[in-house]
Amino acid sequence: MKELSNISVIGFDADDTLWINETLFRKAEAKFFALLESFEVSHIISKELYRTELENLSRYGYGIKSFTLCLVETAIRISGGSIPAESISKILEIGKELGKEPVELLPNVKDTLARLSEKYELILVTKGDLVDQERKLRLSKLENHFHHIEILSEKKPENYSKLLNHLDINPDQFLMVGNSLKSDILPVLEIGSHAIHIPFHTTWIHEEVESHELEGKEYVECQNIGDTVELLDA
Amino acid sequence: MKELSNISVIGFDADDTLWINETLFRKAEAKFFALLESFEVSHIISKELYRTELENLSRYGYGIKSFTLCLVETAIRISGGSIPAESISKILEIGKELGKEPVELLPNVKDTLARLSEKYELILVTKGDLVDQERKLRLSKLENHFHHIEILSEKKPENYSKLLNHLDINPDQFLMVGNSLKSDILPVLEIGSHAIHIPFHTTWIHEEVESHELEGKEYVECQNIGDTVELLDA
Repeated sequence: MKELSNISVIGFDADDTLWINETLFRKAEAKFFALLESFEVSHIISKELYRTELENLSRYGYGIKSFTLCLVETAIRISGGSIPAESISKILEIGKELGKEPVELLPNVKDTLARLSEKYELILVTKGDLVDQERKLRLSKLENHFHHIEILSEKKPENYSKLLNHLDINPDQFLMVGNSLKSDILPVLEIGSHAIHIPFHTTWIHEEVESHELEGKEYVECQNIGDTVELLDA
Repeated sequence: MKELSNISVIGFDADDTLWINETLFRKAEAKFFALLESFEVSHIISKELYRTELENLSRYGYGIKSFTLCLVETAIRISGGSIPAESISKILEIGKELGKEPVELLPNVKDTLARLSEKYELILVTKGDLVDQERKLRLSKLENHFHHIEILSEKKPENYSKLLNHLDINPDQFLMVGNSLKSDILPVLEIGSHAIHIPFHTTWIHEEVESHELEGKEYVECQNIGDTVELLDA
């Protein structure tokens, strides 16, 4: 890991870094599989759903609305067009329930943000749907720790570069902390900034990376967000 | 209208101010009404659709995905649950087509932005869905005229106040130009900034305001975005 002494701004990913998210989508998927069990087995539905999600990613982006539309499309395809409207209603309901889930913070998040905000400017850098992310942020009650909230449609190197430009800082002054190697770590290292990876037990297949992509990459892995404080103090 | 000599930043709304938008949604609605004509007459479907949209506004927000989900929900309700999955597929297609529409700039937009950007800092202030708005901005080729792009989930006074804070300017240094009295004019006047209204021939019912809400409000109405140049030079 490169020298961390220059850091002035720390970016935090939100979903599965500050609060639980992927687990809730898996719970929603399980309800969807159950609804379609007379048509197909779970692992095939899951594969078909992922295919639909990939096909629609540039069109719909991330988030609950995109997910719900993909559920509907997949259900119609899997049922060969025979799924009744009543079941489509239940699918819309699965999406709505997902949007009513409480926000459960991960361990040590509150204390860590409080401590780091004494010394660094903290920003929230999340991708996804505006409505979803603003709702979760409000419920998290973490908003006051952040100097700036950035909701991006994608987390690519150019999005991070724009952000640093906007913040008027050099790449080596920026550290990103997040659970996704693909979205929070690799693009940040690519523009010459620093990154700390905190794995979450469940990762959406789209966020997974091949091990060769990580070869020679300099970043630190922590098991708990609380470890970042010690790491930065060292 | 209050003195405009202090203005340093001009915010432009996007949909139906810089490019055509509402017309495309109306075209999509017409396809939807045609699809449901065996169940109900257009004006009732339209009313039911608006009811669904209002009910889901805080849940889904604005944009094509929200619109598509509301079409599906309305179709199921109007058909009494008897609509076939094939028609639901066609509804998803209506949404996808809406997301492929070209971006048609309104008259004089390009020249006006070019001229105003010589003297003022221009920012784009739009509400809606991140994916939709980024796509339209890319296709519009107007991005270079703007110093900053702000996509809000809502255009309420507090959202504008946050924006001015972020831009580090006083309310009287800000002018907003847009077609929606509800989103672009009234909330901006409320925080003490300036506003120019440029009506568009079609307004979504949700953006309409009662005439008494405009009483005593100081703003200018222009028929064409090009008129703003003269107005600011005066």
